[in-house]
Amino acid sequence: MSHDPHHSGATRTEKDTMGPIEVPADKYWGAQTQRSLHHFEIGGDTMKMPLEIIYAFAYLKKAAALTNADLGVLAQDKAQKIAAVCDEILAGQLDAEFPLKIWQTGSGTQSNMNVNEVIANRAHVKGGGQLSDEKKSVHPNDDVNKSQSSNDTFPTAMHIAGYKMLVEYTIPRVETLRTTLDQKAREFMQVVKIGRTHFMDATPLTLGQEFSGYVSQLDHGLKALRNTLDHLSQLALGGTAVGTGLNTPEGYDVAVAQKIAELTGHPFRTAENKFESLAAHDAVVESMGALKQLAVSLMKIGNDIRMLSSGPRSGIGEITIPENEPGSSIMPGKVNPTQSEALTMVCAQVIGNDVAVSIGGMNGHFELNVFKPLMIYNLLTAARLLGDACQSFNDHCAVGIEANQERIKMHLDNSLMLVTALNPHIGYDNAAKIAKKAHKEGTTLRQAALDLNLLTNEQFDAWVKAEDMIGSLKK
Amino acid sequence: MSHDPHHSGATRTEKDTMGPIEVPADKYWGAQTQRSLHHFEIGGDTMKMPLEIIYAFAYLKKAAALTNADLGVLAQDKAQKIAAVCDEILAGQLDAEFPLKIWQTGSGTQSNMNVNEVIANRAHVKGGGQLSDEKKSVHPNDDVNKSQSSNDTFPTAMHIAGYKMLVEYTIPRVETLRTTLDQKAREFMQVVKIGRTHFMDATPLTLGQEFSGYVSQLDHGLKALRNTLDHLSQLALGGTAVGTGLNTPEGYDVAVAQKIAELTGHPFRTAENKFESLAAHDAVVESMGALKQLAVSLMKIGNDIRMLSSGPRSGIGEITIPENEPGSSIMPGKVNPTQSEALTMVCAQVIGNDVAVSIGGMNGHFELNVFKPLMIYNLLTAARLLGDACQSFNDHCAVGIEANQERIKMHLDNSLMLVTALNPHIGYDNAAKIAKKAHKEGTTLRQAALDLNLLTNEQFDAWVKAEDMIGSLKK
Amino acid sequence: MSHDPHHSGATRTEKDTMGPIEVPADKYWGAQTQRSLHHFEIGGDTMKMPLEIIYAFAYLKKAAALTNADLGVLAQDKAQKIAAVCDEILAGQLDAEFPLKIWQTGSGTQSNMNVNEVIANRAHVKGGGQLSDEKKSVHPNDDVNKSQSSNDTFPTAMHIAGYKMLVEYTIPRVETLRTTLDQKAREFMQVVKIGRTHFMDATPLTLGQEFSGYVSQLDHGLKALRNTLDHLSQLALGGTAVGTGLNTPEGYDVAVAQKIAELTGHPFRTAENKFESLAAHDAVVESMGALKQLAVSLMKIGNDIRMLSSGPRSGIGEITIPENEPGSSIMPGKVNPTQSEALTMVCAQVIGNDVAVSIGGMNGHFELNVFKPLMIYNLLTAARLLGDACQSFNDHCAVGIEANQERIKMHLDNSLMLVTALNPHIGYDNAAKIAKKAHKEGTTLRQAALDLNLLTNEQFDAWVKAEDMIGSLKK
Amino acid sequence: MSHDPHHSGATRTEKDTMGPIEVPADKYWGAQTQRSLHHFEIGGDTMKMPLEIIYAFAYLKKAAALTNADLGVLAQDKAQKIAAVCDEILAGQLDAEFPLKIWQTGSGTQSNMNVNEVIANRAHVKGGGQLSDEKKSVHPNDDVNKSQSSNDTFPTAMHIAGYKMLVEYTIPRVETLRTTLDQKAREFMQVVKIGRTHFMDATPLTLGQEFSGYVSQLDHGLKALRNTLDHLSQLALGGTAVGTGLNTPEGYDVAVAQKIAELTGHPFRTAENKFESLAAHDAVVESMGALKQLAVSLMKIGNDIRMLSSGPRSGIGEITIPENEPGSSIMPGKVNPTQSEALTMVCAQVIGNDVAVSIGGMNGHFELNVFKPLMIYNLLTAARLLGDACQSFNDHCAVGIEANQERIKMHLDNSLMLVTALNPHIGYDNAAKIAKKAHKEGTTLRQAALDLNLLTNEQFDAWVKAEDMIGSLKK
Repeated sequence: MSHDPHHSGATRTEKDTMGPIEVPADKYWGAQTQRSLHHFEIGGDTMKMPLEIIYAFAYLKKAAALTNADLGVLAQDKAQKIAAVCDEILAGQLDAEFPLKIWQTGSGTQSNMNVNEVIANRAHVKGGGQLSDEKKSVHPNDDVNKSQSSNDTFPTAMHIAGYKMLVEYTIPRVETLRTTLDQKAREFMQVVKIGRTHFMDATPLTLGQEFSGYVSQLDHGLKALRNTLDHLSQLALGGTAVGTGLNTPEGYDVAVAQKIAELTGHPFRTAENKFESLAAHDAVVESMGALKQLAVSLMKIGNDIRMLSSGPRSGIGEITIPENEPGSSIMPGKVNPTQSEALTMVCAQVIGNDVAVSIGGMNGHFELNVFKPLMIYNLLTAARLLGDACQSFNDHCAVGIEANQERIKMHLDNSLMLVTALNPHIGYDNAAKIAKKAHKEGTTLRQAALDLNLLTNEQFDAWVKAEDMIGSLKK
Repeated sequence: MSHDPHHSGATRTEKDTMGPIEVPADKYWGAQTQRSLHHFEIGGDTMKMPLEIIYAFAYLKKAAALTNADLGVLAQDKAQKIAAVCDEILAGQLDAEFPLKIWQTGSGTQSNMNVNEVIANRAHVKGGGQLSDEKKSVHPNDDVNKSQSSNDTFPTAMHIAGYKMLVEYTIPRVETLRTTLDQKAREFMQVVKIGRTHFMDATPLTLGQEFSGYVSQLDHGLKALRNTLDHLSQLALGGTAVGTGLNTPEGYDVAVAQKIAELTGHPFRTAENKFESLAAHDAVVESMGALKQLAVSLMKIGNDIRMLSSGPRSGIGEITIPENEPGSSIMPGKVNPTQSEALTMVCAQVIGNDVAVSIGGMNGHFELNVFKPLMIYNLLTAARLLGDACQSFNDHCAVGIEANQERIKMHLDNSLMLVTALNPHIGYDNAAKIAKKAHKEGTTLRQAALDLNLLTNEQFDAWVKAEDMIGSLKK
Repeated sequence: MSHDPHHSGATRTEKDTMGPIEVPADKYWGAQTQRSLHHFEIGGDTMKMPLEIIYAFAYLKKAAALTNADLGVLAQDKAQKIAAVCDEILAGQLDAEFPLKIWQTGSGTQSNMNVNEVIANRAHVKGGGQLSDEKKSVHPNDDVNKSQSSNDTFPTAMHIAGYKMLVEYTIPRVETLRTTLDQKAREFMQVVKIGRTHFMDATPLTLGQEFSGYVSQLDHGLKALRNTLDHLSQLALGGTAVGTGLNTPEGYDVAVAQKIAELTGHPFRTAENKFESLAAHDAVVESMGALKQLAVSLMKIGNDIRMLSSGPRSGIGEITIPENEPGSSIMPGKVNPTQSEALTMVCAQVIGNDVAVSIGGMNGHFELNVFKPLMIYNLLTAARLLGDACQSFNDHCAVGIEANQERIKMHLDNSLMLVTALNPHIGYDNAAKIAKKAHKEGTTLRQAALDLNLLTNEQFDAWVKAEDMIGSLKK
Repeated sequence: MSHDPHHSGATRTEKDTMGPIEVPADKYWGAQTQRSLHHFEIGGDTMKMPLEIIYAFAYLKKAAALTNADLGVLAQDKAQKIAAVCDEILAGQLDAEFPLKIWQTGSGTQSNMNVNEVIANRAHVKGGGQLSDEKKSVHPNDDVNKSQSSNDTFPTAMHIAGYKMLVEYTIPRVETLRTTLDQKAREFMQVVKIGRTHFMDATPLTLGQEFSGYVSQLDHGLKALRNTLDHLSQLALGGTAVGTGLNTPEGYDVAVAQKIAELTGHPFRTAENKFESLAAHDAVVESMGALKQLAVSLMKIGNDIRMLSSGPRSGIGEITIPENEPGSSIMPGKVNPTQSEALTMVCAQVIGNDVAVSIGGMNGHFELNVFKPLMIYNLLTAARLLGDACQSFNDHCAVGIEANQERIKMHLDNSLMLVTALNPHIGYDNAAKIAKKAHKEGTTLRQAALDLNLLTNEQFDAWVKAEDMIGSLKK
């Protein structure tokens, strides 16, 4: 783990306030990025700062440069140079220039500087300069970071990345699954089946009604998630180091948020209170909480599908799900609810993510919360996982769910719980007697009822109809 | 733990579908309550079903009886008898009649039956009957529970109790603290102090700005909590056993929710999808998540107050807090931030409550979630604790916070971070040189700047003014 | 919530370093207890400092007094007076004298002072004095708290209370359940049944083997819990205010721990490092973690029992569990796995308790962790709940579990998974063909095998024997 | 996200029980791996099944092959071929052949088959065959998976990977930090400083004593972690599909575990109860719980270091930590406790990992827990992160911690808490008077004591000595 893969080739010397340091000759990043690489070898290659954060930085650096130019504190040509590199970043052309870890300084300063350095150096090179030039045409701090601090840029990037992920990635995928489940609810709306409460046989409902509950859960979850977006749309940018907006021109905060809104197409606006925006990340806590709620809902849905499809011979088996793969390396012919398994594993992960975010969120001190990378990593991870798992579950399971009519009918016909239909006619206590007798003797409700002389055959026919016990169906 | 304190005196015999059982002669409860007492000796006397749930049941039983009568399925005089007992319950006159544990059946059936039995028997006695009469004038199932099931009443009680607690208890107390912190923010708005990021000295802000961040956190938290109320206002009642509304009269669900809204003064309405309302309790997950967010915020606030008041000689000491009690049994003269301690302990508890609710919420199966008592216990506990802790912190700490002007000034005058004001004038690298020199030599910024010939005495006076570094103040 | 129920009657004036305060005339507590009552109205009457902590204090105060006397720093007669009151506390005679909340100062100082005050005043009264005497014969700080600080007494009480609860209460009850499950495992060891993996039919095992897995889980959980006891047996007492042992006589820490060991009958000893003992409560985190592991195990066991007993007609139904109560207020004849429900709700709570403890545990600062009451409250709550839930589940469910032989046989005979037995004989791919054909055609394995000409009738009899597929049985 | 990067080039046709499928021509994996790739596009490229699991599979496949050969159920040459490929895997030569996601089937079957397919095909090619040959010389199921099932191999791989990671990676790194902190404790053992309880000034201790508490925490945490290794050393292998050991030769389970012990050099042994080993992963829960305890400890340590080094002018500043990077992009001269930040972020993550593992652990059903990949992913992630963070914190922070003697002395001299030394001489109440007077008047304890005529100048000198208040120092 301790070798530094970035030092193997030719290097150039870069400098920052701490002195000179060797940097790979062909990389655009500078001294501060290199120091971070050296000091934070934590978590291996799979735990780099997410590219969503880098792209969010590109939006905000471009917006800041253009706004700085508009407000007269940055030369227009420098702003254009910066903007051009940001466009390259957003096009994915510079992905390899952002090697830093999630587990770095808790303010994300080093990733802010990574972006500043890459933009400055790349702009210099695009303008005809050399990486080895001692003096560059664009300065990472004085130009690229102008009117900014890590302390307001990183939380801004958190909100941009989180908002975009939720709105562009997670929500559409949850909606896809919601739509499929709704179609299934309509398709199965007339399929009367036995209900189950306490995991035990209960009064009937339709399979479509059962599925409509899942749809309602996702509707509420999506609404809860959307409720959190307003907080997430508020940007810290303009607060600079501690929230006061030191070293920013008049009107900058409002203008730069407006610019970000234009560039991203999302309704970002400047935060009303910048002190909160730096010192706490409750917006991330809030959105993460809504993802957690969705995970709770999806765990229920995933479990139900798993259990409803259980069998093939000795389970519940009231639905069938697509056979995607051989289920076992030793048991031929077995097909498993693997999409439910992936989905529910993701849900467990998301609940873990939520706890990590809560702990990060509660640990801000004074003017800064320094659990920023942890918090956004967990939010983005949960948002992507939930989105992917919903899409996968949709494509490879939900769309192919079919009612197993034969087994549903068998369970319904066998059930003792239809006795409940007799309550209004013969009273609770008599109904209970019938059910208990049938249960004890392994016979049918009808037989038990007749044996007890509590009603006639004709009354049984008239009163005990599962299809009359399911209420009015949703059209 | 194994003795049954309810059996010590005289008893009478009660019966249910399982047979006879001895019940304390003077208690209104019946056989099913007694069975639950016997079978669930879990958690000791401090873990009874919360009275808020019992009172919520009283509202809903009254509403159901009146609605049943309106819809012609229950005799008006029975409905009035039931309603009269519900009023006694709401007046707190029957609190001792609800002895059951939280840790009972996961549907809360036994508490539903406890309420049914007490109402039926009390109504019988109020009508001149005896508890020992074999036949009672009001039947717990056929009358009190008419058009209901445990499966829809318990979640209805959960929503009523949760909504009332949040709106009537928690939110006002959080708002009280929010108002006090806002007053402090205004009071301290001109008090310029050193900022701290990474727990390290940073550029200045005012103490009022710092407090305004706390206010903003609570504003966002309150908004998030209010966003959850709509889901909580939707009632399961009318779904009966599995959500289909079996054995309910036409129009009952809408009417009974309307009646509950009238009785409570809160905008309750019938749930759009009753299958969700029984099988999942995402509304509880959602509200609990918002309380967790408030806990995260309050942990930050409580910690900041604790740290800002630290000392008296060797800490930060920029504010003073009220001296409420001797701080130590061995160290005379010491006063501790005990209100912060109680508040932050409560926040830790609330985050634990949230995890418990998530686990309960994810474990519904098919038509019923059977972690109901767990879920509502945790929500109510968290809601009460947060409300109480905010009120206590407000009354015994926040209202008495004062700025320690002397210490604030000392920190500000000593700080090296005012150097940031020089960035626009002499550039980042030169400013860094000054700060580093002053730091190394233990001298002032001014001295270091002059020694480095980077600016004049007059320029220092003109450029380095903490009061110019704090942005425009909120009025 | 805001009235103080302790002020309603006659009062006397008590004093501490902050001045005079009115205290109920008939109560033994003093000024500091009264101040805490006033300042911490959090959580209502169900959230008082657990009596287990008060009793643990009684042990340690007695041990401290006797040790102080032995070491010559406290008069023997004072020590005896103190010890006599401690015995009264341990006999439960003074329970009403400890009214303080969990949510107080995070060091538990106020409960330490509550104990000191009650002991001093009660000792004075036992010696013939009056509560209203200005000068008392025993001083709460100088005598009862001698050689102590809240900072070492409260964590000592935490360890005593936690250790005793785990060893005397929790472990025996978990063992009881473990023994019952082991008996059931032996009882069912020959009952061959279908296995289920992925909730789907799999190769057979015996019901006893299935239950033996539960026993193994509890054995590992109990071992893990016992592994934590050594840390919990280490006592902070002797560390006084910050861990240095200031104001304690030579040899005191070792001697007082030895005395506590004698009084309690448990192997307590002085902690090797007192700085850790005050500043961190990792021993509580450790024991709580083991309870969490048990909760994870019991959640699995409770769920399995719930699912195995599901039905009666449309579930798995391979075991029957005792009928303890009517299962539903609307569905007569239904019996629910309510003990599983209580048990699994408790497990969810315990996992929430664990998170609360982790958050408390991580938040110590410098020489003191001030989340002490939170931490021990959660540990004691979890320990009691798990103990109670295991006992209840044992007494009212596990002991009455019976195999439903008929249903087990039906599932086994129907199963397609016995095909696995053919793998060594005809290869995996051929075996899969048989299973798929039988599945598709709804026929038996035998029929499908014969139709495919893959083996003879006799070979099928010889090779496909469920009783040969279950390995060697544990005796 | 929806393109399949593995299909871009030439393909060959592979078959399994579900039919033919196209596989990249140059890859060793087969049909089942390819199906999983197609069906589980969840989490992006950073969420592949960890290589530690693949390597653990290589150990167990080699051990199984050799044991099968020893027991006469597999030809020796096939066993040698399998073993040879396993060695290639362990040498890292086939890393690119294991593309599957964590979020797949919850049994890990697909990764088991990925390994089986790669070994079989690679063995065939090493033996001179072609990937395109219809018949291969080694069969993935009949040979490589012989005497195995996914259901026992995956948990075996979990235990091997987890055990190795903890013992070879995590523990040594935690020990490194423990050793450094112990050296610092010894180095600072004479440095008397003010203590802090409740974040407030308290009686003195030495900086070395303070650090010794950290060492003690890690010692206890390491002990707790080691306590969990025994459970983790028990292997499921030999249980096959449901724990019965179906299709394994006599003595296989003991022998194969012994072989794994030889190959890895760790004391693995066969699990006593295989039913538990498949259906529950409490060993993972147990080890994860111990990592969580370490995270709790390290959060405390990281916070203390952060706070002790705060300043440079307006914080506590009693220690200095290495300056590794410029601390801020806007505030020159500022250096931040970034290693504490990375460490404490990791701790927050680990606590989230623990919750995810608990949820996975509790959700086993009947004979199989299908949250296996989730559980081991979280354990491995936490184990690596904690190891890396300890190493990083050690190398870049702990080793360079120095006492700031000047500031320590200033705090000590200023403190009012030395008054505690007077308790035995003049009583608690008089000592309190002195402290309060000095606090109120901003003067020294000495002056206040003399003004109150409570003791003489000489008595003050004799009694108030910080160096006498710190107990006996650890050698």
